[in-house]
Amino acid sequence: MDVTRELARFVVQSEYRSIPEAARRETVRSLVNWIGCALGGAKHEAVDRALEALADYAALPQATVLGRVERLDTLHAALVNGIASHVLDFDDTDLRTLLHPSVPVAAALMALAERRKMGGAEFIHAFVLGVEIEGRIAHSICENHNLDWYITGTAGPFGAAAAVGKVLGLDEQRMAWALGIAATEGAGLRQMAGTMAKALVHGRAAQNGLYAALLAARGFTSSEQAIEGPHGFAKAVGRGADVRALAEGLGESYQIMRNAYKPYACGVVAHAAIDGCLTLRAQHALETSRIDRVRLTVHPKALELTGIKSPRSGLESKWSLFHSAAVALVRGKAGEVEYGDRWVLDPGVKALRERVEAAQDAGLRQDEAHLAISLSDGRVLEHHVEHAVGSVANPMTDAQLEMKFVGLAEDVLPRTQVDDVMRLCWSAGGLEDIADIARMCVPRTPGADRPTQDMEAL
Amino acid sequence: MDVTRELARFVVQSEYRSIPEAARRETVRSLVNWIGCALGGAKHEAVDRALEALADYAALPQATVLGRVERLDTLHAALVNGIASHVLDFDDTDLRTLLHPSVPVAAALMALAERRKMGGAEFIHAFVLGVEIEGRIAHSICENHNLDWYITGTAGPFGAAAAVGKVLGLDEQRMAWALGIAATEGAGLRQMAGTMAKALVHGRAAQNGLYAALLAARGFTSSEQAIEGPHGFAKAVGRGADVRALAEGLGESYQIMRNAYKPYACGVVAHAAIDGCLTLRAQHALETSRIDRVRLTVHPKALELTGIKSPRSGLESKWSLFHSAAVALVRGKAGEVEYGDRWVLDPGVKALRERVEAAQDAGLRQDEAHLAISLSDGRVLEHHVEHAVGSVANPMTDAQLEMKFVGLAEDVLPRTQVDDVMRLCWSAGGLEDIADIARMCVPRTPGADRPTQDMEAL
Repeated sequence: MDVTRELARFVVQSEYRSIPEAARRETVRSLVNWIGCALGGAKHEAVDRALEALADYAALPQATVLGRVERLDTLHAALVNGIASHVLDFDDTDLRTLLHPSVPVAAALMALAERRKMGGAEFIHAFVLGVEIEGRIAHSICENHNLDWYITGTAGPFGAAAAVGKVLGLDEQRMAWALGIAATEGAGLRQMAGTMAKALVHGRAAQNGLYAALLAARGFTSSEQAIEGPHGFAKAVGRGADVRALAEGLGESYQIMRNAYKPYACGVVAHAAIDGCLTLRAQHALETSRIDRVRLTVHPKALELTGIKSPRSGLESKWSLFHSAAVALVRGKAGEVEYGDRWVLDPGVKALRERVEAAQDAGLRQDEAHLAISLSDGRVLEHHVEHAVGSVANPMTDAQLEMKFVGLAEDVLPRTQVDDVMRLCWSAGGLEDIADIARMCVPRTPGADRPTQDMEAL
Repeated sequence: MDVTRELARFVVQSEYRSIPEAARRETVRSLVNWIGCALGGAKHEAVDRALEALADYAALPQATVLGRVERLDTLHAALVNGIASHVLDFDDTDLRTLLHPSVPVAAALMALAERRKMGGAEFIHAFVLGVEIEGRIAHSICENHNLDWYITGTAGPFGAAAAVGKVLGLDEQRMAWALGIAATEGAGLRQMAGTMAKALVHGRAAQNGLYAALLAARGFTSSEQAIEGPHGFAKAVGRGADVRALAEGLGESYQIMRNAYKPYACGVVAHAAIDGCLTLRAQHALETSRIDRVRLTVHPKALELTGIKSPRSGLESKWSLFHSAAVALVRGKAGEVEYGDRWVLDPGVKALRERVEAAQDAGLRQDEAHLAISLSDGRVLEHHVEHAVGSVANPMTDAQLEMKFVGLAEDVLPRTQVDDVMRLCWSAGGLEDIADIARMCVPRTPGADRPTQDMEAL
């Protein structure tokens, strides 16, 4: 059972024409969502701090930091764009595994695209394949993690390595080495939730996978049984997970079709409760002052993952079902801004947060929730959410993705440029040079540190 | 039990004058051994391939690749010098845990030293502290790995982060973040044994720890309970290891005192058997043609770790007790050359390897072995090795370290330069600028790609 080699062979032999139109289309939606998240995250303090720390060592101006004027070497652009596109916890999710598929793959590919010309179809093809490999590894092996590891930190490097390896034209032997190097670099502890290091784990997945493919391309060797070997990834990271299903049915359907996009900037398991709060707020023109108590009933994973009762920072609030419900009721939305320090520390939100209670019910799905809001006049408003917006059963529409994109990008780029970038993303499959998107993500505002022209001349 | 913070506090508060003279002295011996290994590894194919792969992306000429004319940015110099100094499997070992203490710490510190001036005493102090932290983590947590992970890949980043953090003057809060970032980047699968990716794991430990300290220095946050938290390092990587002993007795004794140096360029658990082969060969002027059969009795870990019967490459041969015994009997030594492809494929060595048998005896120590060599004339030569050379009980002398150093360095640097570097290393504690050692490790030979003067001007 040489599954490492089987996966490598599939990636090497895959042809673009074999990728169904629906999968290409979903990949474009993933790209739109990913670029929006990267732009929205570009001004986050975590990105500022990473750039300050690395500027001296990563100053070869090879690739764009999306949404900023700084340029970095290719490897660090993958890292920093990975951090930026995940730091808001607003990027996409495979709802079976909670893998975030796009960050590792897209951040690695886009950084490389500015150094090595890559057509839009080539990019989409590599993107689909990267998501395929990391998604299969996540599902077959990493779910055995028991929640100690970030699944994107361990499975993500395989996705980035496969995608970049495809673009570099690796043969089967070198692709197997690339997957092997990715296997030995998987890392990332869930203990980092609520800190900048969580985003670092996700950026590292992109950078490590890119390293893996670049090294393997030059003949840097690794185990050829990195996944299935006696001390391999499945044994060590997957705690003995069974790898037999890993390569079954390759090419028959595509993991990208399961990709889900978040309407709210927080842990996805809180989304059904947020949906319910927004619905009740709208239906009853609810004012916070009338709310006595909010009772949520949710899937156990919602409490496991977003159980922080009193978050102290924006990053922590993304892991708080209680903040999520309270801020959604106060603000009527739960976007990037609502998970910033401003609203976490807001007295009204804090007071309401104290009046939110949550119970778990293993009979619910993860995208399902029940709400009962008691009012000061004695009434109780109830609502049941069958499938949260953004779930596979209730996906975000293209129009909703566009609204999300604009909301994320408009603080970073002038509005006309936002529209230009979005248009380019939708037409990605036909672009002659996918890096046009990255170049379009450099702010053209007069206030920018340096004019865009200079950057392009570098 | 905030052990992450306790470790951070110890590193921050430690003063150089509190480091015993014996610990400083052992650190200098570790430095001599490490520089020798880095120089010996500099011409290895793994380093060539890594440099080819990374050259385009890592070309800021900030730090020396020891033993070569190329220069790289600081972060990649730490990586590549880490790869080079481990790829021969000739670097130092904590024999309790099989941690390789110097690679992460020294490769990170030396790369930074060329960018940020570092006195010799400052370097030695940081080195001791780095080894202290990684050694404690390795012993208390990582031994629970059950051999699936490379302990240097998981514990090593803590050492590099602590050492670099000390040099950067981090306060307790930032030191705790640095250790937290190191915790979430630990990785490395034992499945990589016998491939270049094993050395990559060790170089990555240096680079990741350096990243961790640089990021934390700029306020990039991580969990403050990265080790002991409910989804922290001890739970995830250490599989629930007990962390209570981790910070006990800090400053009372130093891990560096346990450091052991290898006389042979292979897995340390094969060393006792090699000692025995060399002794019998010398005592009896043994010729290979007279040897009928070699019977080794060794600690079970020797078969577990160096059990490859028929290695196919130099890198694999380092994990073969059978090759080790055979080549020691054929060549009368077991250095870098004896673990190269040339001797692995040698017909005489291969033929003798087939006549080597090994049995395990759990009653033996890891540095102990029994040998019985049957000769064609019917005689049986027996020998018992109590403590292999290079064990803590039978350490390499300074003179032996020097011989090893010269053997490793003389193919890379002109002989006078070898002596200059060695002299600088022995006097490290008194150097005003420790980076003088790195600069002295650039080959001055006329055949070098570029003259040294140009490199220094960069």
